[in-house]
Amino acid sequence: MIRVAAVTENNEKITDIEISEVNFSAYKWWWIDFSEPTEEEIKQLDTSLHFHPLAIEDCIHSLQRPKLDYYDEFSFFVTHAVGAKELEQKEIDFFIGENYVVTFHHWDSAEINQVWSRLLKQEDINEWDEYRIFYEVMDKVVDNFFPIVYHLEDEINEVEENPGDKPMDVLLDHLFDLRHQLLRMRHTINPIRDLFYRMLSSHRLEGIRERREYFADIYDHLMKLSEMVASNREITNDIRDNFISINSYQQNKVIQVLTVITSIFAPLTFIAGIYGMNFVHMPELEWRYGYHASLAVMTLLTIAMILWFKKKGWFG
Amino acid sequence: MIRVAAVTENNEKITDIEISEVNFSAYKWWWIDFSEPTEEEIKQLDTSLHFHPLAIEDCIHSLQRPKLDYYDEFSFFVTHAVGAKELEQKEIDFFIGENYVVTFHHWDSAEINQVWSRLLKQEDINEWDEYRIFYEVMDKVVDNFFPIVYHLEDEINEVEENPGDKPMDVLLDHLFDLRHQLLRMRHTINPIRDLFYRMLSSHRLEGIRERREYFADIYDHLMKLSEMVASNREITNDIRDNFISINSYQQNKVIQVLTVITSIFAPLTFIAGIYGMNFVHMPELEWRYGYHASLAVMTLLTIAMILWFKKKGWFG
Amino acid sequence: MIRVAAVTENNEKITDIEISEVNFSAYKWWWIDFSEPTEEEIKQLDTSLHFHPLAIEDCIHSLQRPKLDYYDEFSFFVTHAVGAKELEQKEIDFFIGENYVVTFHHWDSAEINQVWSRLLKQEDINEWDEYRIFYEVMDKVVDNFFPIVYHLEDEINEVEENPGDKPMDVLLDHLFDLRHQLLRMRHTINPIRDLFYRMLSSHRLEGIRERREYFADIYDHLMKLSEMVASNREITNDIRDNFISINSYQQNKVIQVLTVITSIFAPLTFIAGIYGMNFVHMPELEWRYGYHASLAVMTLLTIAMILWFKKKGWFG
Amino acid sequence: MIRVAAVTENNEKITDIEISEVNFSAYKWWWIDFSEPTEEEIKQLDTSLHFHPLAIEDCIHSLQRPKLDYYDEFSFFVTHAVGAKELEQKEIDFFIGENYVVTFHHWDSAEINQVWSRLLKQEDINEWDEYRIFYEVMDKVVDNFFPIVYHLEDEINEVEENPGDKPMDVLLDHLFDLRHQLLRMRHTINPIRDLFYRMLSSHRLEGIRERREYFADIYDHLMKLSEMVASNREITNDIRDNFISINSYQQNKVIQVLTVITSIFAPLTFIAGIYGMNFVHMPELEWRYGYHASLAVMTLLTIAMILWFKKKGWFG
Amino acid sequence: MIRVAAVTENNEKITDIEISEVNFSAYKWWWIDFSEPTEEEIKQLDTSLHFHPLAIEDCIHSLQRPKLDYYDEFSFFVTHAVGAKELEQKEIDFFIGENYVVTFHHWDSAEINQVWSRLLKQEDINEWDEYRIFYEVMDKVVDNFFPIVYHLEDEINEVEENPGDKPMDVLLDHLFDLRHQLLRMRHTINPIRDLFYRMLSSHRLEGIRERREYFADIYDHLMKLSEMVASNREITNDIRDNFISINSYQQNKVIQVLTVITSIFAPLTFIAGIYGMNFVHMPELEWRYGYHASLAVMTLLTIAMILWFKKKGWFG
Ligand SMILES: [Mg+2]
Ligand SMILES: [Mg+2]
Ligand SMILES: [Mg+2]
Ligand SMILES: [Mg+2]
Ligand SMILES: [Mg+2]
Ligand SMILES: [Mg+2]
Ligand SMILES: [Mg+2]
Ligand SMILES: [Mg+2]
Ligand SMILES: [Mg+2]
Ligand SMILES: [Mg+2]
Ligand SMILES: [Mg+2]
Ligand SMILES: [Mg+2]
Ligand SMILES: [Mg+2]
Ligand SMILES: [Mg+2]
Ligand SMILES: [Mg+2]
Ligand SMILES: [Mg+2]
Ligand SMILES: [Mg+2]
Ligand SMILES: [Mg+2]
Ligand SMILES: [Mg+2]
Ligand SMILES: [Mg+2]
Ligand SMILES: [Mg+2]
Ligand SMILES: [Mg+2]
Ligand SMILES: [Mg+2]
Ligand SMILES: [Mg+2]
Ligand SMILES: [Mg+2]
Ligand SMILES: [Mg+2]
Ligand SMILES: [Mg+2]
Ligand SMILES: [Mg+2]
Ligand SMILES: [Mg+2]
Ligand SMILES: [Mg+2]
Ligand SMILES: [Mg+2]
Repeated sequence: MIRVAAVTENNEKITDIEISEVNFSAYKWWWIDFSEPTEEEIKQLDTSLHFHPLAIEDCIHSLQRPKLDYYDEFSFFVTHAVGAKELEQKEIDFFIGENYVVTFHHWDSAEINQVWSRLLKQEDINEWDEYRIFYEVMDKVVDNFFPIVYHLEDEINEVEENPGDKPMDVLLDHLFDLRHQLLRMRHTINPIRDLFYRMLSSHRLEGIRERREYFADIYDHLMKLSEMVASNREITNDIRDNFISINSYQQNKVIQVLTVITSIFAPLTFIAGIYGMNFVHMPELEWRYGYHASLAVMTLLTIAMILWFKKKGWFG
Repeated sequence: MIRVAAVTENNEKITDIEISEVNFSAYKWWWIDFSEPTEEEIKQLDTSLHFHPLAIEDCIHSLQRPKLDYYDEFSFFVTHAVGAKELEQKEIDFFIGENYVVTFHHWDSAEINQVWSRLLKQEDINEWDEYRIFYEVMDKVVDNFFPIVYHLEDEINEVEENPGDKPMDVLLDHLFDLRHQLLRMRHTINPIRDLFYRMLSSHRLEGIRERREYFADIYDHLMKLSEMVASNREITNDIRDNFISINSYQQNKVIQVLTVITSIFAPLTFIAGIYGMNFVHMPELEWRYGYHASLAVMTLLTIAMILWFKKKGWFG
Repeated sequence: MIRVAAVTENNEKITDIEISEVNFSAYKWWWIDFSEPTEEEIKQLDTSLHFHPLAIEDCIHSLQRPKLDYYDEFSFFVTHAVGAKELEQKEIDFFIGENYVVTFHHWDSAEINQVWSRLLKQEDINEWDEYRIFYEVMDKVVDNFFPIVYHLEDEINEVEENPGDKPMDVLLDHLFDLRHQLLRMRHTINPIRDLFYRMLSSHRLEGIRERREYFADIYDHLMKLSEMVASNREITNDIRDNFISINSYQQNKVIQVLTVITSIFAPLTFIAGIYGMNFVHMPELEWRYGYHASLAVMTLLTIAMILWFKKKGWFG
Repeated sequence: MIRVAAVTENNEKITDIEISEVNFSAYKWWWIDFSEPTEEEIKQLDTSLHFHPLAIEDCIHSLQRPKLDYYDEFSFFVTHAVGAKELEQKEIDFFIGENYVVTFHHWDSAEINQVWSRLLKQEDINEWDEYRIFYEVMDKVVDNFFPIVYHLEDEINEVEENPGDKPMDVLLDHLFDLRHQLLRMRHTINPIRDLFYRMLSSHRLEGIRERREYFADIYDHLMKLSEMVASNREITNDIRDNFISINSYQQNKVIQVLTVITSIFAPLTFIAGIYGMNFVHMPELEWRYGYHASLAVMTLLTIAMILWFKKKGWFG
Repeated sequence: MIRVAAVTENNEKITDIEISEVNFSAYKWWWIDFSEPTEEEIKQLDTSLHFHPLAIEDCIHSLQRPKLDYYDEFSFFVTHAVGAKELEQKEIDFFIGENYVVTFHHWDSAEINQVWSRLLKQEDINEWDEYRIFYEVMDKVVDNFFPIVYHLEDEINEVEENPGDKPMDVLLDHLFDLRHQLLRMRHTINPIRDLFYRMLSSHRLEGIRERREYFADIYDHLMKLSEMVASNREITNDIRDNFISINSYQQNKVIQVLTVITSIFAPLTFIAGIYGMNFVHMPELEWRYGYHASLAVMTLLTIAMILWFKKKGWFG
């Protein structure tokens, strides 16, 4: 679908025009949105709008990395929006020219739909122009990163506190997935953050300098997000190291129990084995208190060993 | 609560005025403090003081990261103070303008209360102005970080030396919490440090350049704090690696004991088992010294194995 | 083989000339390709083209690292192409001068062959010159890195998910090889990326500045590749740490089983051993329900220990 | 103690003056040393010398980090000297002004005592001035770092080679202490190194630029020290990883022995147990060669298992 | 030994002069080589050549780190050559002045000997001067690093593939040594690389700028060497992590075998123990098929446990 919104010098909004019919320089500013465009519609990027073939190529192929290119006639900006449910990265492309912005996205973008309706509803659009559109969309895109990172943060806390007493291999698998998702968020957030830094200090984007505070506010959020992601990755590192340390400690405790049991019963069982032998000539067997003596020896041996292990600290 | 302190050209302090009634340009300089403001009071930021909506938004939402924004009429500075007990981060916001400072905080701030009373008590306030207020508050905020970091340092030492002989899983959990707290301190201290660096070299904050040595002194403390936090995190790393190494070494020792016990008694018990069999035809059983011979064989076997383990170094 | 393509001012292509006969300044621009040259042919670099001996030396010795040198008369660029099958690094050298490009490679280069045929087929070569040749070859070289990195990514995923249930030592060996290959890709991609950065900001390569968008597009791909490699190395790190963690956890479980078994049967077997002794005077042996009493004791002991281990969480 | 040394225009040394009586501008240059000053003496920093209160504060509180502050009238430099025995950090403060240097230290400083006596003994002090004093002291301070780092290096080598065959937990504890000491040396050396870098490129320290080669020589030593510390920390890392690897390998060997012993004797003892049962009807017991047959079966089983373990490589 | 080579304006070589007799400004350029100089000869640095005492001090003390100092009259360069056999670092010092180069080395330097004989043999030395000497020596010094790094690379491969099936503790020790040697190579190569970078962009070394391509070629080799060392250290890291992972995996396997053996034979031996008891009243003992029943129970138990372990995957 291609949507056209053109604004006249009197701030009247015109939306019932076809991209192929329009005379663009006749308007104060205009916005064209390519939402899930067909192949036929995509061709308009070239035939009606005459964008540079490399920029068009970048539009068509998705999973381009976030980037900002300056062409002679326009600036080309690629961002990633992230779908909350599956963390799939949805690319949104912006062409920003003298008096226009063109947005392009292969998926239906909730962020753009919101801005589109807000523009249509808004009565006084005196303050609006193509950079305002760009700001409004990016503000929503970046705001949508927060619940995702907060959610990951919550899941990390849950892994750490483990309220459901899940076994450690399940926790470790979960932790591994969380690390993977943090890595993906980092690859989305950090390049966009760096591009906003470039934009804020660029001399080519007039409209951004005029709204410096607004774009700096988005940059601020990106900085905060980037720090949250880095610090959460560090925390997952700590959690894993902690799991390993505690597991290794518990293993040591279990091996100590094993050693105590074996050390106590091996000699006792051996003594019982001695007097279970069937030699014809075994004097002890005929002693009056031979049995009691053997039990006494075993008891003393047991006590001695328990004391020794106590001293070694192998009881608990 | 909103407190207003205005200073006349004759250095007289006036504190019994309402924010909504005051004519600000009539004073040499003034300070307004929003301490735990009600929603009604917060509106004064806009209605009486006419600050930029983005700055007001940053005031209202807490847990903004430390930052410094230059608006046309004022500079906006966000810092984090840290409560000693629970390490909760309390945000303090400063609006610094031509002849005023406005402080804003959702919590009761001990630092600001101290400076407020000092200002009221001070007789000669010739040397004071809005930047002095800013310096005095930040000096206290940063000084309050030291006992926290020193306390963490002490706890790390206690974990390392373990005077109460706590079991290792308790120590590791403690270490993990300490690392977490260090991480939070780093996220408080490092951005403030970087903002002070920016302030010291900025051309927009006249009053800071005039008091360069004072603000450089705060920056110095922030550098020291940041180094202490980094180095303590490194030390916790070392402690944990050490715990793991020593635990792993001890485990090895325990397994050696287990192996020695098993290795000695398994063959002895087996020999006893042989002569415990009930075959009708077992010539050894009827030998005169069969029993003694079997005991001798067992003794020799034991000695041989002990020597072998001594050679292997498995006795302690 | 040496191939010569010279283009006249009328954009006519001339390819039937010998390197030694040609008068280079007579053409608008020209391209000479040394493909798997003989020692005799290599000498032409010096005798016909008079390149600097250090540049010629760098041509002859392969496995030079990617680099860009500015000589007085020409720029010298070394890149690595990578063969998809065995990841062997094939060096391609470019001499780019006023109106010419010379390519040199000890192996048959698919990338250069493609560009060569495209040049010959192309009817309108108005837009072509020596920098266009350079762009076309590098575009193909860099595009060929993608399938390799995607393939490594797939293999990493396969190791992680382990559909064929391979034993862990095989997986770890595979992971180690993948890390090694990623390291090699990094050593190919990162220097080329850095050289493109230098080229894009250089004042000496006129033809690159004119086609800025095109070379920036290649640089973009190199950035993306470099990030993919870095992030995949990080993921292999995570996978290995995960394997080790889970293995260590499972080992703990197995040792718990071992301990439970030993702890239950050692005392039972010891009791059976006691009543297997052959002392003449053992009153219990003659009791009416001695046997049943001993079985009862053993059963109670077993139940007690099972309850104790349940409490310790060593069942499961 | 406060020592005053003033040098006249004729290069005469005057040392018998009190700080409170002296007219400083009457001399070519002068040096005042505060060595373990009393509280009364410390006040002279303010009353006689009129230094800035922040600089005086930094003097009084020790464990200030190494730093360099430019005040209007003087430069203030804080360094750490390190006592060879206990690695305690002793702070030395320098005030360097137009024609004077003031040194301040709470402890007795061997470095300063040496320079003081050398100044007094020196006959021709034509070449000396306040920067020469600064150079001479710092040269000694930095030279004194070398034996400490060399000593740590030796101890690391001793831990690695372990000539006294100490148990690993002792070695690991030692290694941990060495890492701690290296960390402290890094925190002493690196800031001083960075300050020297700043000094060498500063436009405010005339006297340093004039003696550039001398101060560059100290900077050189600090670079070397910093590299030695970094590289030794890396080596301790390697040693610890090596210890852990080898311990883990040996543990594996011990567990193999345990498994071999258990695997061989468990079935043998079981067979002996079978024929130790007291069933009335056990045909094998009455066979003529039952006993010998059972021994033969056990022998074969033992041989089979030994061969199996040999194949598995579990015999050492 | 001190060797003097002076070149006249007519490019005649004069080598039969004593350092103390020569009038240096009389020649086009000259080279003096101090090879394993005696204490007497070292004094010539001061008495005949009048070099700065700090530079002379750096000559005399070896194991100075590679460095480049600019003195008023000359540049002073310290490099490390590495002896192939024992990786001992041999220092070579260069004084490069207006029309001379002085080389100084406590050991016999193959690199310098080669250049010296080449200079003497060379007929046309029109192209030679003091910078050419410097280039020729450094070219050889750096070329000699390659076989060393290649050798380390080969040894790392050998450790990884372990053709001689050495035990892991030997391999780990070898790996540790290799890491140590790589660290030493890094400390030799990286500072020299950084110095060449400084030289190439310096405005003080006229003769280097004139031969830019040549010195850039050496810099290139140093970059390549530095990357090889870094990447080989990373590979040794990977190898060690791999060894530890695989060892840990194998340990798990061995413990599984141990558990299986113990789990199967412990209950069987216990049952045999039961019927080995000597109670007078044990009804089963008199059953006609008691023995066979007991064997059947044992067999069933064994089968059950084998199936259970199969399900657990503990059979290999
Ligand atoms: Mg991307
Ligand atoms: Mg927002
Ligand atoms: Mg971080
Ligand atoms: Mg960490
Ligand atoms: Mg960690
Ligand atoms: Mg905001
Ligand atoms: Mg923060
Ligand atoms: Mg303070
Ligand atoms: Mg933060
Ligand atoms: Mg201070
Ligand atoms: Mg640190
Ligand atoms: Mg560490
Ligand atoms: Mg070369
Ligand atoms: Mg390379
Ligand atoms: Mg391409
Ligand atoms: Mg592209
Ligand atoms: Mg990455
Ligand atoms: Mg990682
Ligand atoms: Mg410090
Ligand atoms: Mg010195
Ligand atoms: Mg290092
Ligand atoms: Mg380290
Ligand atoms: Mg290491
Ligand atoms: Mg020196
Ligand atoms: Mg060095
Ligand atoms: Mg060479
Ligand atoms: Mg590398
Ligand atoms: Mg690595
Ligand atoms: Mg490394
Ligand atoms: Mg690694
Ligand atoms: Mg690791």
